[in-house]
Amino acid sequence: MISVDEALSHLFSLVAPLEAESAPLQDACGRVLAETVTARRDQPPFSASAMDGYAVQSSDAVPGARLSVIGEAAAGHGFAGGLSQGQAVRIFTGAPVPDGADRVVIQEDVAREGNTITLGDQLDEGPHIRRKGTDFSVGDAMKAPRRLTPSDVALLAAMNIPRVMVARKPVVALISTGDELVMPGEDPGPDQIIASNTFGLKAMLEEMGATARLLPIARDNTASLETAFDLAEGADLVVTIGGASVGDHDMVGDVAASLGMERSFYKVRMRPGKPLMAGRMGQAAMVGLPGNPVSAMVCGHVFLAPMIRLMLGLGEAPAPRRSARLAQDIDKGGPREHYMRATVADGTILAEDRQDSSLLSVLARANALMIRPPDDAPRAKGETIEYIPI
Amino acid sequence: MISVDEALSHLFSLVAPLEAESAPLQDACGRVLAETVTARRDQPPFSASAMDGYAVQSSDAVPGARLSVIGEAAAGHGFAGGLSQGQAVRIFTGAPVPDGADRVVIQEDVAREGNTITLGDQLDEGPHIRRKGTDFSVGDAMKAPRRLTPSDVALLAAMNIPRVMVARKPVVALISTGDELVMPGEDPGPDQIIASNTFGLKAMLEEMGATARLLPIARDNTASLETAFDLAEGADLVVTIGGASVGDHDMVGDVAASLGMERSFYKVRMRPGKPLMAGRMGQAAMVGLPGNPVSAMVCGHVFLAPMIRLMLGLGEAPAPRRSARLAQDIDKGGPREHYMRATVADGTILAEDRQDSSLLSVLARANALMIRPPDDAPRAKGETIEYIPI
Repeated sequence: MISVDEALSHLFSLVAPLEAESAPLQDACGRVLAETVTARRDQPPFSASAMDGYAVQSSDAVPGARLSVIGEAAAGHGFAGGLSQGQAVRIFTGAPVPDGADRVVIQEDVAREGNTITLGDQLDEGPHIRRKGTDFSVGDAMKAPRRLTPSDVALLAAMNIPRVMVARKPVVALISTGDELVMPGEDPGPDQIIASNTFGLKAMLEEMGATARLLPIARDNTASLETAFDLAEGADLVVTIGGASVGDHDMVGDVAASLGMERSFYKVRMRPGKPLMAGRMGQAAMVGLPGNPVSAMVCGHVFLAPMIRLMLGLGEAPAPRRSARLAQDIDKGGPREHYMRATVADGTILAEDRQDSSLLSVLARANALMIRPPDDAPRAKGETIEYIPI
Repeated sequence: MISVDEALSHLFSLVAPLEAESAPLQDACGRVLAETVTARRDQPPFSASAMDGYAVQSSDAVPGARLSVIGEAAAGHGFAGGLSQGQAVRIFTGAPVPDGADRVVIQEDVAREGNTITLGDQLDEGPHIRRKGTDFSVGDAMKAPRRLTPSDVALLAAMNIPRVMVARKPVVALISTGDELVMPGEDPGPDQIIASNTFGLKAMLEEMGATARLLPIARDNTASLETAFDLAEGADLVVTIGGASVGDHDMVGDVAASLGMERSFYKVRMRPGKPLMAGRMGQAAMVGLPGNPVSAMVCGHVFLAPMIRLMLGLGEAPAPRRSARLAQDIDKGGPREHYMRATVADGTILAEDRQDSSLLSVLARANALMIRPPDDAPRAKGETIEYIPI
């Protein structure tokens, strides 16, 4: 058996960062920036008023000063001329500060009569001017790779970047295998169950930034499996679910091998989800996940998510972990790394009582996979432990 | 001035939960379940083997026992008959356990010759059977409202639920206002800047589960604003950005009022983002946000996100908060609730040095809004403080 990290290294060797494509800014949130972007302008592009008031020379900004209003500067409509001592320009937030002015007196501190203003008794410190380039300057960079957030999108807009190069979305084909499966909404026979893994994995992969294709269920015979692999044509990653253990009826590996896959089979020292098949199949990577519903979903978080991130250009790294304090004492762990369904609230983590890998109801109410390393010692309530948020 | 909570109460009174619509399960992740769903079957629907091995009677599961193999049960293909003492049925993971059997002996513990098996010297405790209904039973509920996760989608599939009723996505129309604005990719004049807020807010709203419509920029004149409001027809929420402060050139409120909006204007005791306009306008709620880029984005997190959640049926609640330990001592706070751009890493929060509300570059590298209540006392490094993740 190999460790989770060793299995991940094998899986990383099967995929590579995908090419970049151009996306309009309004569709770029959540995508991964593939090429560093530099600002096409300064922000603000001119020194701008931060308040509504009057632009003046700072030497004139003294209590009781009387100044002559010579014009107006609004956002989008600057004052064309310059400003001398004794003069003021009515100014609004966002307007360019006129040449010669270096101070804005807020309108609450000003009394105006006709074209004359008188400053109040107590003036604030000012200057209420946002200097040209305070936010960013031409050439300032947003560095790739980076998964774009709403704030990033706002910043890119301000930089005058209407389109960005982002990593193409990985296409993942999902194949459930097994004579026992029917699709949701169908009428299962007495020995059958509903295919659930592909639906859960599709949702998970799309949250990660992939495009998932749900293929028809493959039956436990060569022709049906071959058809499924044919339908997966064009995918970057083909994921089969079920048929990856060692029973006489698990034929996914044989069929994949007959179609040219250089097949590796790993027993990974983990719970749940021990058996894992992987290889290259033509242009695609192929991963065979175990068929137990919870095992498949846990392997999605532990193995597929890092592969997707690598394809998106985010590098080789295991699933991001956080830590929380144990809500209870726990016994020593077993020989396999255990990803326990658990609930994190207010920085405290509580493992579910029932950890059987068939229990989707337990997985659905969990929000974390608490990680116990192999042969973990007993731990006391209050100790911190790592988990993967799910 | 009113508090953030008072402002939120006003905003909540402008919107209501939206109607439900049917969505296929494969498109339901991230949507909010609007009607409680009950399982249409037991899971497993029959007692099923958890391993590959042999189904036997537990009284026969003793070291060295010799049993006669009378048939085979595979996933999807159960064994039709019953099983008596002295008999075994070859069984695979997921197959129905034959009548009469109550134990599976794993294949590693069995030696087979023809149709006779001999059990090994050391047997595990078993029984390696997943009892009917262990995961869930007919009628077990997934309760609405609930934002569906990938695990929920897997569970719903297993319950044989092909479609679910989810809250309709709120439609939000976004209107930037101001003569100073041009769209990204255009060639701004010397007094102009690029519209960034609508792009950032669109991305934020869509992450929250809304559909956002980016309308053309409205200019600072009545006709242009009226056109923009016309184009917002059909939206559940109309959001204007800019024109919500008190300068002579802020005419959004006047035009909205002339179009029938019952206008309320609030000064909210918060930084950034003090001025806020709100009201009902025909079938839609209308909110006017301040024009400073960071103010608009912060108001999006603090005000728009809770409104969206209410429309999605998730109830009235402010933006969810977490807590972290302060990375540094901080001085006493000001009279307004301050949403400081900050970075959280490893449970520790560090506020950015520059908090000016024009700095999108600072917002983009932050991942949290650290919340200082009004008139907050000084705080020491290591104390916990609340924040909104962004």
